[in-house]
Amino acid sequence: MRIERPRYTERFGSVRINDVQKVLELDSGRAKELPPRKNIAVQKIEDDVIKDFEEKMAIVIPTKDEKLKLFEGVIRGVPHECLIIVVSNSQRKSVDRFRMEQDALNQFCHFTGRQALIFHQKDPILAKALTEAGYADFVGEDERVRDGKAEGMVLATFIAMMANKKYVGFIDADNYFPGSVWEYAKCYAAGFSMAKSPYAMVRILWHYKPKISAGMYFKKWGRVSEITNKCINSLVSTKTRFETQCIKTGNAGEHAMSLELAEILPYASGYAVEPQELVSILEEFGGVLPITHQTAAKHGVEVFQIETINPHLHEEKGLEHLIGMLLPGLGAIYHSPLCEAETKQLILGELLRQDAIKPGEEPPKPHISAPPKKIDLHKFTNVLGEHMDSYSALGEK
Amino acid sequence: MRIERPRYTERFGSVRINDVQKVLELDSGRAKELPPRKNIAVQKIEDDVIKDFEEKMAIVIPTKDEKLKLFEGVIRGVPHECLIIVVSNSQRKSVDRFRMEQDALNQFCHFTGRQALIFHQKDPILAKALTEAGYADFVGEDERVRDGKAEGMVLATFIAMMANKKYVGFIDADNYFPGSVWEYAKCYAAGFSMAKSPYAMVRILWHYKPKISAGMYFKKWGRVSEITNKCINSLVSTKTRFETQCIKTGNAGEHAMSLELAEILPYASGYAVEPQELVSILEEFGGVLPITHQTAAKHGVEVFQIETINPHLHEEKGLEHLIGMLLPGLGAIYHSPLCEAETKQLILGELLRQDAIKPGEEPPKPHISAPPKKIDLHKFTNVLGEHMDSYSALGEK
Repeated sequence: MRIERPRYTERFGSVRINDVQKVLELDSGRAKELPPRKNIAVQKIEDDVIKDFEEKMAIVIPTKDEKLKLFEGVIRGVPHECLIIVVSNSQRKSVDRFRMEQDALNQFCHFTGRQALIFHQKDPILAKALTEAGYADFVGEDERVRDGKAEGMVLATFIAMMANKKYVGFIDADNYFPGSVWEYAKCYAAGFSMAKSPYAMVRILWHYKPKISAGMYFKKWGRVSEITNKCINSLVSTKTRFETQCIKTGNAGEHAMSLELAEILPYASGYAVEPQELVSILEEFGGVLPITHQTAAKHGVEVFQIETINPHLHEEKGLEHLIGMLLPGLGAIYHSPLCEAETKQLILGELLRQDAIKPGEEPPKPHISAPPKKIDLHKFTNVLGEHMDSYSALGEK
Repeated sequence: MRIERPRYTERFGSVRINDVQKVLELDSGRAKELPPRKNIAVQKIEDDVIKDFEEKMAIVIPTKDEKLKLFEGVIRGVPHECLIIVVSNSQRKSVDRFRMEQDALNQFCHFTGRQALIFHQKDPILAKALTEAGYADFVGEDERVRDGKAEGMVLATFIAMMANKKYVGFIDADNYFPGSVWEYAKCYAAGFSMAKSPYAMVRILWHYKPKISAGMYFKKWGRVSEITNKCINSLVSTKTRFETQCIKTGNAGEHAMSLELAEILPYASGYAVEPQELVSILEEFGGVLPITHQTAAKHGVEVFQIETINPHLHEEKGLEHLIGMLLPGLGAIYHSPLCEAETKQLILGELLRQDAIKPGEEPPKPHISAPPKKIDLHKFTNVLGEHMDSYSALGEK
C-alpha cells in the first residue's frame, strides 16, 4: 500500500489528530532489496508489515437483519490474517436470520480454511458472562444484552480482548463492495503501522459516497457527516481559539482502535457511539479536563484519518435514518463538558433546520457506559469458555 | 487469492474452455512454511506467484472521452507490478482531453514511482510505424489509425510485445471501483498461473452487475451478454451435438491473453472484438476447420472464466449502446464458417426481437485484421523508439 504521509496535525493536549491521508495505491508492489528513495510526501508500507498488523487485528462486523448477500460479500472481503468477529442482533423468530448468517460464515470458513467467531447479542450466556464479570451496564431487566450497535461493538471488543488481539476494527455489514471492506482493513493496518503511540485510532474517510437516485452522483460528504464534523470542529476551535476543520470523520462507522485505547474509553449507546469516541478522547486527553489515564496521556493518543481509493456504496436507509443518526451524534457533542455556548448554539441551529428537534428542546444526552477495562476478563472468559465451540466457525486447518 | 479449481471443462478440438471459477478470497494470507492440506475444490495462489505474473503483464486501458475521475480511479487500481498502457482516442480539439489524461497519469506515476505508457490512437507516428512494419490494415486514408476500440487494443498489444511482456490484459476505463480493477488484474494473474498451455486466455465474469434505476438491482447477467452467450454456446453445441452452456463470458471486455496467443489471433473491428476472439479460437483450434498453427494446437488453447468477488459498476451507456454492442458481436458468430443454420436462425430471431435488424436483413460481417504476428516488430520499434520519451509517464525510481 502507498499512502500520503501525515502533512498536518492538530494537537489538542496530548491528542494528535492527523489530517486526512489519501491512499495512492492499494498494492505498491514487491519489497525491493534496496529501500526506495526516501520520499517526503508518500510512504510505501510493505505487504509484510500490513500482514503483521492484520494478524493482531480482529475485524468486527455488527449486523442486524442485513441482506445475506451483502453480509456474505463483506466477510469475503476481510483479509485472511484478520480474525472475523460477527455480532448479530438479527431476528431469530419465524425466519431465523441469525442461523442463516451462521451457515454462510461456516461455509466460507470451511472453504477458505479460516477461523471466525459469531455471537448473537441476545444470547443469555453473554449477558450472564457480563454480569458475573462485573460489567452489567449493558444487561437489561430481561437478563439479555440491550439492543444497540454500540452494545454489540463493545461486546465484540471484549471478545477481541479474550482472543488476545492487539487491534479491533469495525466494518458495517451493509457494504456492496467486498473490495472496499478489504481496503478498510488494509487502511487500519497501515494507520497502526504509522502510529508512534500504542494508543491509536484509525478512521476511514470514503473517497466518494455515491448517491443512487436518477443516476449516480458522487458526493464527497454525506449530510450527517458534514454537520457532525462542523460541530465537533467547533468544539475544538472554541477551546484552542484557532479555527480548525481537521476532523473529517466524526461519524466514521468504519474505524479501528488499538485495544489499549479501546479499553480505556467510555462508550455512548446507539448512534452516538462514533462521535462520542472522539469527544471522549478530547475530554480525557485534551488537557482541559482532569486527566485520568496518566500513561496514555504520556504516550499521547493518535488519530489517523485515511481516505480510501474506493468509493463507499452501501444500503440506503432513507431520511429518517439520517436524522436518527444525526441527533444522538450531536447530542454527544452538545453534552460534553468541553462544549461551549457557541457550539451549543450551532448544534441547536442545525437540529432545528433539520426538523430534528422543536424550538426550546435539547438533543438527548447519550447513555455512557464504563470503559471495557472495568470488566474482569478472567471471569468473562470462564463463563464463555465452555461455550466457545458454539461460537466458532472453524475452517479446516 | 483463493479460487475454485476448474470443475468442468468443455473440450472442442484442442480448445479447453473451463467453466466459471469463483474467487473465494481476495487475500488468502501469508504463504505458510508447510503447504496447506491439498484441497480438491479450492486452490490457494500465493501473493508471490501472483506478483511473478503481474511483472510479466501489461494492463491496457482503452479510453475515449471517459470522465477523468473514473480514468484516475482505474489507473490507481492497477497492481504496482503491471505495466500500464493507456490507448486513448479522446478528443484533442477545443478541450484537449488527451492532455488531461496524460497529466493525470504523469502525476500518478510521479507519486507512486512507477512507469506507464500513454498513446493517442490518432498520433501520426503510430500510423507511420504500422505502415513501415507491414501492418497497414489499421491505417485509414488520412494516414491515421482508424477509430475503434479493437484497433486501440491491437495497437496496445504491439506495444506490450515491444515492452517484452508475456501477458496482456484489458480493463475498460469506465469502472467506478478501483478495487474491481485491482481484482481483475489479480484474476488474470491467477488464471495464467493455473494454465498448462502457453496459449491461454482469462475472461472475467462479474459477480453481479448492479442496475441503477430506482434503487439497486443486482443482475447476474447483462442482456447483451445473455444473448451473446446463448448464441456462441449454440455454435459449439451444434458441432459437438451435446448442448453446452459453458461459455458465460462471450462479451467480456475484461479479459487477458498470453502474448503467444494474442499474436496469432485475427481481430474483428469495433465491438465484435471480444466475441470474435472466442470464435477465432474455436475456428483455428477446434479441429473442424484446417489448423494453421500446429504448435499452438499441440499445446492446446486454454480459456479460463473467473467470477470476481466484487460486483461490476460502470458508466451506463443507454439502450442504443447495448444494441450497438449486440449487433456486431452476433455478426461475428453469424459469419463464422462454424456457424450452422440452426444458430443463424437463433441469431436472426434475437436481433429481430431487439429491433436491431429488419426482416430479411443479416447482421454485418465484421472486418477482420491480420494476426499481430504479421508485424515486423523490429521496424515498428525502430520508428517508435526515438519517440518513446513522449509516450512515457515515468515516475521517480
